Amino acid sequence: MAMEPARTARQRKQDTLAQLEEHPDAWVATADADGAAHLVPLSSYWDGAALLFATPERSITGRNLAASGRARLALGPTRDVVLIEGRVQVFAPGTVPAELADPFAEAHWDARTEKTPYGYYLVRPERIQAWREVNEIKGRDLMIDGEWLV
Amino acid sequence: MAMEPARTARQRKQDTLAQLEEHPDAWVATADADGAAHLVPLSSYWDGAALLFATPERSITGRNLAASGRARLALGPTRDVVLIEGRVQVFAPGTVPAELADPFAEAHWDARTEKTPYGYYLVRPERIQAWREVNEIKGRDLMIDGEWLV
Repeated sequence: MAMEPARTARQRKQDTLAQLEEHPDAWVATADADGAAHLVPLSSYWDGAALLFATPERSITGRNLAASGRARLALGPTRDVVLIEGRVQVFAPGTVPAELADPFAEAHWDARTEKTPYGYYLVRPERIQAWREVNEIKGRDLMIDGEWLV
Repeated sequence: MAMEPARTARQRKQDTLAQLEEHPDAWVATADADGAAHLVPLSSYWDGAALLFATPERSITGRNLAASGRARLALGPTRDVVLIEGRVQVFAPGTVPAELADPFAEAHWDARTEKTPYGYYLVRPERIQAWREVNEIKGRDLMIDGEWLV
């Protein structure tokens, strides 16, 4: 199969925003202070500027997000990659604003009703990269230090 | 869409082995000693017992794999998850045995010919989990401490 021509930065940004607006599942990579990596799939809700996740506060991911304040996320299949690094705002159980948790519940499910206490975690992207095949590795940076490059 | 009935453990193991034998792309999560998580997609080669990856020795993933000796991997889409934790055997550039690098080259490409020095990283699974939807969360453990449960 022939490789598609590399997309422009503008097109990649458009594709990335379209993907975010579908509130996709994301691979969420976190690490603990001892340098052990963790990785789980979580449903996301994109509020236009940041990605919201819900996971049990006592889960490994919940604890790592709270302790490190950082996450690295991947969206999409491995040949249509969006990689996001960001800083995490943590909402302990009972503290998430309805303006975030309500649309999250509409997109996925209402984690506030779980018996297990769920935290909410808002990841604000600082770095975004997007590429499909090897010809798109060059130019994969779409956001650096929280600023879109296009 | 109705949820499929939960698969048996035997079926999940069969599906997981079938997926591994396709030498799939994997999401490779690693962490550095400061607790920063990293996540990239890499092509894998399954030799029947472990997954082989190739990545630049000086990349973040290469350095993290060498320093921590551990990785957490995900295969498949987020609704047909295989999660693997394992211990890493590192082959510095020029040291990978042909019996590993040759079939890797056949499945993907020959990283030994890259101008950038590539390391090879053999991840031997110690823990494997597989699930599709929420009804498969129970029973998702297929391997613990390097032993298949079925």
